Amino acid sequence: MGIIRKKSQEDDRDRWSEVDLRTYRGTEGPRGTKQILLGPDDGAPNFAMRVFHLAPGKSSNEEEHAFDHGVMVLRGRCRVLLGDTTHDLEPGDVVWVEPNEHHRFDSVGPDVLEFLCVVPAWGEVDARKRCPAE
Amino acid sequence: MGIIRKKSQEDDRDRWSEVDLRTYRGTEGPRGTKQILLGPDDGAPNFAMRVFHLAPGKSSNEEEHAFDHGVMVLRGRCRVLLGDTTHDLEPGDVVWVEPNEHHRFDSVGPDVLEFLCVVPAWGEVDARKRCPAE
Repeated sequence: MGIIRKKSQEDDRDRWSEVDLRTYRGTEGPRGTKQILLGPDDGAPNFAMRVFHLAPGKSSNEEEHAFDHGVMVLRGRCRVLLGDTTHDLEPGDVVWVEPNEHHRFDSVGPDVLEFLCVVPAWGEVDARKRCPAE
Repeated sequence: MGIIRKKSQEDDRDRWSEVDLRTYRGTEGPRGTKQILLGPDDGAPNFAMRVFHLAPGKSSNEEEHAFDHGVMVLRGRCRVLLGDTTHDLEPGDVVWVEPNEHHRFDSVGPDVLEFLCVVPAWGEVDARKRCPAE
C-alpha cells in the first residue's frame, strides 16, 4: 500500500505525520533537522524524499558524493554553492546537484530555511552512513 | 554542472526557468500541463522531478505502472485514489504511490491543483511513451 504523509505545524515547524524529527548532524555537530518523508524504511525502492530545516546562519556540509540531489526550496532563503559558484534561491526555486559535484546549502535568513531534497534510495542509505541523523 | 530552475509566475501559473510548458495528455485528451523541472534530458541519472497543473474537475489518468510516484501537493486541493481508497490532500501533504498501485489524482478545486511528482528516471521515459506530453 501507498503512504499518506499529512503536513501539520508543530512549534512553528512543518512536520509530517508518522515521520521522525531527526537531528541533522554535520561533521562539526548539529546543523538542523531532517525528516525522511519517504525512504528505504518505507520500502521505496527508487528514491527518497527528505525535508531539512536549517536556522539562519547554518549550512549543510560542504561536500561531494556519488549521488545527486534534487532540491526545492519550500520556505526561507538559501544560498547554494555549486562547484565554485553561489546562487541565491527563493521558495519554489529548484536546484539539481549532479553526482560528485561540490556543494553546500546556506540558510541566509531571516526565516528558517526549509527545503525538500530528493536523492536516489541508495543515496539516502549512503547519507546516513556519512552523517547519522538521529 | 548542476542546474538552477528559478520559479516565476506566468499567467497566474508557476513556471520554472528554461522548462517547457507541455500539455499533459491523458488517454482521453488534454488533462492539464506538465513541466519537467529535472529529468533524463538534463542527464539526471536517478530520478525526475515534474510539476503538474490540473484545473478543478480534471484528473490524472487512472492507471497503474511499474514505477512509483512521490507526490507533494504545492497548491490547490487534491483527492487521490490509492487502490480502492480515496484520501483528501492539502498543500504540503505527501503521498507515495507504490509500484503497480492503482491510482488517480483529482483536482477538487476551487483553485488549480499544482503538485510535484517525483519518479525514477526510467519512469519518466516510460511515462512519455504512455502519454506523450508535448
